[in-house]
Amino acid sequence: MSAFSVLVEVTLRPGIADPQGATIERALPALGFAGVRGVTVGKAIRLTIDADSADAARAQADELCRRFLTNPVIEDAVITVG
Amino acid sequence: MSAFSVLVEVTLRPGIADPQGATIERALPALGFAGVRGVTVGKAIRLTIDADSADAARAQADELCRRFLTNPVIEDAVITVG
Repeated sequence: MSAFSVLVEVTLRPGIADPQGATIERALPALGFAGVRGVTVGKAIRLTIDADSADAARAQADELCRRFLTNPVIEDAVITVG
Repeated sequence: MSAFSVLVEVTLRPGIADPQGATIERALPALGFAGVRGVTVGKAIRLTIDADSADAARAQADELCRRFLTNPVIEDAVITVG
């Protein structure tokens, strides 16, 4: 058993309104930031998982995402085991 | 000028209450997930920055964080340019 640090990045699926990202993007020019675009705001969930291998940790994180960390209708998840 | 994809991971600083993370962690055993701990929930902000170099893109993201993406009293930010 080793402890694996896992990052789950939850983003809104394409086509789903992202008012937080849109508000940040709209504010940028007035604050002097040119050349910044495509702003999206999602969730960064960090976990420590005790598992036998990195693959087992990833499988458990994937199951967690499908069961209750994300809403698959409107959200995507990217799992990074590091 | 190139376009750099930037991820800003905003996390609560140590000692700041994280009720979302605590609620997830408390729910895990009842859902059959043993061996998952240290759950924290932060924000994952993605941006596309037009800049001359990766360093310039990182500097602009850093300035954005300090100016208005994070609250430095309670939040830390980790910037990844990729």
